[in-house]
Amino acid sequence: MSMEPMRVVVIGGDAAGMSAASQVKRRVKSAEVVVLEKSEDVSYGACGMPYNIGYRADIEDLVVLTAEDFKRKRGIDVRLLNEAVGLDERNRSVRVRNLASGREYEITYDYLVIATGARANVPPIKGVNGEGVFTLKFLNDARKIKSYIDRKNPKKAVLIGGGFINLELAENLKRLGMEVVILEKLSGILLNFEDELRELVYKKLDEHGVKLILDVDIDSIDDGLVVRTNKGDFQADFVNVAAGIKPNTDFLSDTAIRLAGNGAVDVDRYFRTNVENIYAGGDCALIYHRILDRNVYMPLGTNANKAGRLAGANIAGANEKFGGIVGTSIFKVFELGVAKSGLSLKEALDEGYDAFKTTITAPITAHGYPHQGSVSVSFIVERGSGRVLGGQVVGDFEGVWRIDVVATSLYANLTVKDIQNLDLAYSPPFAPVWDPILVCANQAIKQVGK
Amino acid sequence: MSMEPMRVVVIGGDAAGMSAASQVKRRVKSAEVVVLEKSEDVSYGACGMPYNIGYRADIEDLVVLTAEDFKRKRGIDVRLLNEAVGLDERNRSVRVRNLASGREYEITYDYLVIATGARANVPPIKGVNGEGVFTLKFLNDARKIKSYIDRKNPKKAVLIGGGFINLELAENLKRLGMEVVILEKLSGILLNFEDELRELVYKKLDEHGVKLILDVDIDSIDDGLVVRTNKGDFQADFVNVAAGIKPNTDFLSDTAIRLAGNGAVDVDRYFRTNVENIYAGGDCALIYHRILDRNVYMPLGTNANKAGRLAGANIAGANEKFGGIVGTSIFKVFELGVAKSGLSLKEALDEGYDAFKTTITAPITAHGYPHQGSVSVSFIVERGSGRVLGGQVVGDFEGVWRIDVVATSLYANLTVKDIQNLDLAYSPPFAPVWDPILVCANQAIKQVGK
Repeated sequence: MSMEPMRVVVIGGDAAGMSAASQVKRRVKSAEVVVLEKSEDVSYGACGMPYNIGYRADIEDLVVLTAEDFKRKRGIDVRLLNEAVGLDERNRSVRVRNLASGREYEITYDYLVIATGARANVPPIKGVNGEGVFTLKFLNDARKIKSYIDRKNPKKAVLIGGGFINLELAENLKRLGMEVVILEKLSGILLNFEDELRELVYKKLDEHGVKLILDVDIDSIDDGLVVRTNKGDFQADFVNVAAGIKPNTDFLSDTAIRLAGNGAVDVDRYFRTNVENIYAGGDCALIYHRILDRNVYMPLGTNANKAGRLAGANIAGANEKFGGIVGTSIFKVFELGVAKSGLSLKEALDEGYDAFKTTITAPITAHGYPHQGSVSVSFIVERGSGRVLGGQVVGDFEGVWRIDVVATSLYANLTVKDIQNLDLAYSPPFAPVWDPILVCANQAIKQVGK
Repeated sequence: MSMEPMRVVVIGGDAAGMSAASQVKRRVKSAEVVVLEKSEDVSYGACGMPYNIGYRADIEDLVVLTAEDFKRKRGIDVRLLNEAVGLDERNRSVRVRNLASGREYEITYDYLVIATGARANVPPIKGVNGEGVFTLKFLNDARKIKSYIDRKNPKKAVLIGGGFINLELAENLKRLGMEVVILEKLSGILLNFEDELRELVYKKLDEHGVKLILDVDIDSIDDGLVVRTNKGDFQADFVNVAAGIKPNTDFLSDTAIRLAGNGAVDVDRYFRTNVENIYAGGDCALIYHRILDRNVYMPLGTNANKAGRLAGANIAGANEKFGGIVGTSIFKVFELGVAKSGLSLKEALDEGYDAFKTTITAPITAHGYPHQGSVSVSFIVERGSGRVLGGQVVGDFEGVWRIDVVATSLYANLTVKDIQNLDLAYSPPFAPVWDPILVCANQAIKQVGK
């Protein structure tokens, strides 16, 4: 055994990376933990950026801990503007470029954590890098957008891509008084939701005057700005492109580390890669899905935090197996909450399940309570067994937290009969006496045996 | 087999009774279903009464369905002002008094459902039946209180008993501009909560100027009104007494039906009493507790609805076993939500569990999100196994729904390690990246092996 302290090198200083670094240091005081971060920021709440823009809050509000904090309070050697450019896994050595000085150096490790995250996938459209055209992935992107909005006071936004980031942005740009058009290349948005729930989002966008245009092919973004498409030209003075993300794993292409087709690092349930002493987690890696019983690519903040935490704990010897995600996601668009956990009906059928769905709409407070509201709930259920395979909740955002009851039920592998029996809390300000979750279970159970 | 249609008599027309009646009628179209209700109301949202008073809403807002609705839409023979005064279970016959005419009659049944509910427990205090002194259990109680408030415009309320009904009432009387004093005979309120969570309620009452006085023995309520106690005299022009409730089962005292010490009807997990063809549920009966694996008395609206529904289904031949409650309750007092599921630490220790508790306080939205708030979460955990035996959530009421994650976890018998793995929804308006539930699990897990 070496007399040297264990050295853990972490590539990437956001959710997964800093969670891993903190866990190692917390559990093994003597460990030397080095974090290589190519940007100037670590540990910030990226998911809060649309709101930070819309509420004109201070961008620094999103910073949870600075590199200085990690150094001083946790004894972690965070190196900003240091990019990993190569990996020699046989010699356990990372090649690093200091982006400030331009110089390169090697650093060896006993354990390596790959937490390089992902970058915005920018389609090769002419003009996509022009002035007034943005992506929103890093804190610096938000800084640039905010500065642009302050200087130019844009009035017309065109959002390319109809995913949740542009939907959140639509709400927040409206908050700033802009006109908003969303251009989507597919024939619908939120295609992993049931039709009748997706319709609620369409209706809400319409209510707020957000134009959603489908089946759009973009030709170019001309100076000015004009977004030219097969559906006509769109004048804009602000464009955001949110067309998916890509794992930052190019520097691994010559290594023995197993990658998925999209470039994400493959890991086991301990967040180990196939190469000894190398772990990975967060937006650059796959993660185990409990219902599908296989790895999936689901780059979300919660998953990154769980992955990083467990990778760090396991490097420190915890030997903890990940329970798996069930595919939970949630976002807000205007007064609507939109949430999903588990599989949609289409996903379940594609997996070979004999499944059906039940959708209900029910109030979220008691009959006669002054503040009313409602949510729609869908359950995706296996016929015969009654096992719940997925659920969706869309409606007044104060009531959409019920997705966590679905997520917990999915983790525990409950049937609709179990859910019907759940002892959910009841009091007029919080729920009706038959909670929407129970109403949906009561409906769904009638079809289980059919 | 008789050629006559099956006759089901239901005694009591609120949550449990009407649920049972509706289930029978829905499943067996030919059944004759008679509901005997001694008051003039069926199927109303009793839990909404404090808010109906505080928001000066129309009392009829609380009526979900009228007796006429049940007759016309569901074909149920609802007989208002008809009180069951005796039962001859050998001859399957109920003696009924028509309170309007004073006449009595017998009605025979094939199946009987006892759903007589409970009444307010009024302590034998001199003056407790005087003018200006109320209880709040039935819709007519709320009518009387509202009429009194309209006529007298009271300014000083004294609430006798510190349970959740008087706490809800305190908020709502404050809404009407009254001064409020709560008198509690024990040395604390909410004694089934952990100390540190109960303190949050004390603090909130204090913030809103509600005086809470403990260890109070009441001598008398004198005309005027003056509430005379060992802690001094309290001037009032409105008094509400909420000192627990008592099952309405006096008319069963000469029957073979097994009752608990407090008079509640004992039932099995099919809601059958010990006497053939007689079922019971709701505030007049016990209910099966899943964690304790025995019956308890927990008179809540949700429990009554579930009990009635299953009793009705089983009379119609469903043969469905009740999964059991886990003891979930929730209420709001001013900006605070107060919720519990499962056992408190004291209750767990009293049951013989080697248990500990962990309490944390955490934000309910993401770092940097404009709307902040927090909740405190306690988990009660079995040492060694890590099994969660109970949980409590107290804090800003928008975040207290998390009790339903606890309730679902308790139903599914999860450990803190399972909870740590839960894939709960994350997005800035809904939760921080580490949900308070996960924060508490992360803390609790450290003590499991100790």
